[in-house]
Amino acid sequence: MNKSLVVQKYGGTSVGTLDRIRHVAQRIARIRETGTQVVVVVSAMAGETDKLVKMAREICDNPERREMDLLLSSGERISSALLTMALQSRGIPAISMTGRQIGLQTDSVHTRARIKQIDAKRARQALKNNNVIVVAGFQGINEQGDVTTLGRGGSDTSAVALAVALGASQCEIYTDVDGVYTADPRMVPKARKLDVVSYDEMLEMASLGAKVLQIRCVEFAHKFQMPLVVKSSYIEGGKGTLICEENANMEQPVVSGIMYDKNQAKITLKEVPDQPGIAANIFEPIAAAGLSVDMIIQNISAEGHTDLSFTLGREELNEAMVIMEKIAKKIHAVNVSADSKISKISIVGAGMRSHSGVAARIFKSLSKEKINILMISTSEIKVSCIIEQKHTKAAVNALHKAFGLDKKPTAVKSIEKQKTATRKKSKAKKK
Amino acid sequence: MNKSLVVQKYGGTSVGTLDRIRHVAQRIARIRETGTQVVVVVSAMAGETDKLVKMAREICDNPERREMDLLLSSGERISSALLTMALQSRGIPAISMTGRQIGLQTDSVHTRARIKQIDAKRARQALKNNNVIVVAGFQGINEQGDVTTLGRGGSDTSAVALAVALGASQCEIYTDVDGVYTADPRMVPKARKLDVVSYDEMLEMASLGAKVLQIRCVEFAHKFQMPLVVKSSYIEGGKGTLICEENANMEQPVVSGIMYDKNQAKITLKEVPDQPGIAANIFEPIAAAGLSVDMIIQNISAEGHTDLSFTLGREELNEAMVIMEKIAKKIHAVNVSADSKISKISIVGAGMRSHSGVAARIFKSLSKEKINILMISTSEIKVSCIIEQKHTKAAVNALHKAFGLDKKPTAVKSIEKQKTATRKKSKAKKK
Repeated sequence: MNKSLVVQKYGGTSVGTLDRIRHVAQRIARIRETGTQVVVVVSAMAGETDKLVKMAREICDNPERREMDLLLSSGERISSALLTMALQSRGIPAISMTGRQIGLQTDSVHTRARIKQIDAKRARQALKNNNVIVVAGFQGINEQGDVTTLGRGGSDTSAVALAVALGASQCEIYTDVDGVYTADPRMVPKARKLDVVSYDEMLEMASLGAKVLQIRCVEFAHKFQMPLVVKSSYIEGGKGTLICEENANMEQPVVSGIMYDKNQAKITLKEVPDQPGIAANIFEPIAAAGLSVDMIIQNISAEGHTDLSFTLGREELNEAMVIMEKIAKKIHAVNVSADSKISKISIVGAGMRSHSGVAARIFKSLSKEKINILMISTSEIKVSCIIEQKHTKAAVNALHKAFGLDKKPTAVKSIEKQKTATRKKSKAKKK
Repeated sequence: MNKSLVVQKYGGTSVGTLDRIRHVAQRIARIRETGTQVVVVVSAMAGETDKLVKMAREICDNPERREMDLLLSSGERISSALLTMALQSRGIPAISMTGRQIGLQTDSVHTRARIKQIDAKRARQALKNNNVIVVAGFQGINEQGDVTTLGRGGSDTSAVALAVALGASQCEIYTDVDGVYTADPRMVPKARKLDVVSYDEMLEMASLGAKVLQIRCVEFAHKFQMPLVVKSSYIEGGKGTLICEENANMEQPVVSGIMYDKNQAKITLKEVPDQPGIAANIFEPIAAAGLSVDMIIQNISAEGHTDLSFTLGREELNEAMVIMEKIAKKIHAVNVSADSKISKISIVGAGMRSHSGVAARIFKSLSKEKINILMISTSEIKVSCIIEQKHTKAAVNALHKAFGLDKKPTAVKSIEKQKTATRKKSKAKKK
């Protein structure tokens, strides 16, 4: 591992104007002064990719994905050249690299390619020559030499993959927020930035809709144990949020964050004759249509009949209802109904593994607010509840308070203590 | 040679909007219907390259040329992807190719690279598969795998080089004018489009400021004997102007075109002591400063003194005067003066090789208009005169008339006859 190398990724708003690009160059200049080498991964300037997508849609109903990739990859090339120039104008040796030049090889699934390997020979040489490398994110190259792109959040994934390939000490994701929060600050006034989140928690949060990091990027970091830091490119000196492996020495807070998702819909089939294979009859056509079901509940109702509910993303509701109405007839369900005025509230925390009573505490705080729980699902480190949408804000705030997230938890303080204790111990050992 | 393959190049205004791109796709569709295969080379959408250059200048006083090349090459990639999509949406099989994918290898002189070779293997395969290939013009790749650009008019050069590499029957340059004219139509109302111009004439015209084709592109076409056609992308069915080798069978008109250049300046040194080495003393520092002198005249004045005048581009006048004032002192010239109110009028015609009396006819027509000739220079197929700038329009029109360019010359008609005669002869031979 190269202790003095970091990979930094700057998103579209962080390089959205020439002024912002100059600001990023200044930030890199300061890090270089500490003797740290920097590889930078940039997104396209904010708005550029949307502009290109719009042009493509106007000129062709269904553009070929290979051509989309050539088109979309140009935005990152432009921002990488401009940031390289901004660094050079400060006297910092810098070199831009495209996906091909950085050796990022992918499969051929255009517009959502997966990284196969990184041949970082040229990057290593450039680092030896003391250059800052400014990489065009989001893009790679397939075996045929065609440009590929990595899909949504692809630049984050480029950054983590490069950090792994180059043996960086950490990968820093600069964005327009200053870290990962206990809850959405627009919804919960007392939401706090978290100092540390485990990969597992971050994965749950990302899959529950936290937009700060893409799932793939976190998975990649997790797989290769690359510490990730989310920071604001606007705030100087902020520590951001560190995403890393859970440490057995750490005492985790029970809950790290509360998420909500209003973009949910529920479909209910009433009085389905309860026979083996019914679930398959229902969910196979849904899956075949490419729709993703989230939660499923089945209640036994009277006389060999069952009620079955499931949730999915609201934008998939109409398509799902068309399918369900056909199925309902086929399987002799009495009734199909849809409800899109719901929210999913989720509580995420690695500490749940070692703490019982989390679900009980959720039920208690929601019932105190007279909020009815419509559905529940749990994973090892997550509990999700479906509630009526009008209660979203009250529910999130109540849970935020109930799990002690309004204040900096003592548990986190105890991590700090643990760290100090560990350092003292190792000093003692050396003696 | 592949008789059924043409290379077409569309400039920035020809692909300047999505509508224009659709129009180009339609044009290609019609050519395809005749069974002809098409390779298209595109420039960046009009205004894009300027926008990128402006951003680069704002962010860095003196951007590195390697980074400029990465930046500037993105415009052509965007237009090639968009045109490919427009073709695909018409059901025409099409594939975009970057400079690298088309195998255009250059030296490493960034921002004005020279083409070393084209490895057209992949292009040949794409043509075998009946694709229209849409090539991002202006760009190649050097040995290190870095993007290079070919400098001003680079896309024209890309097109000719590809036409040669692929054995196309001709290379068509689509632009916003419908061909090469006998004179600037804004200056000469009776200016006519030329049907045929020889490479040599076109080279002279291009170096005298005809913007329709770049010198390099014509040189390249000349070297490899690739017929060039300049056409308008706005006018349907126009024949444009064919630029090809002079044919011994053709009877050329004496003069093909009249050019003018108002962007000239003259510097005069009065009463320079006439000693050997004086010219070197003057022109060495001018050349060392990178200034290009065009015409030079030296007159003997009285008593071992000489007057010396030369012309250069107006934008170089100030720099040249600073140098000349120093030199004037050193070589004891009595006086240095500058004149930027001049024009250069040039008469170009391959027919001059076999016709005498061209200069006499120029002098006569200008004197009839009471226009004084300040300087003259000649080449094998060109005569240039410096005159006072206020007389530009009168001079160009007088010469246009004097050399019979106002009407379609009989000489051109005789070319047509010759061609017919040649065809008849060859038929006769076959019999």
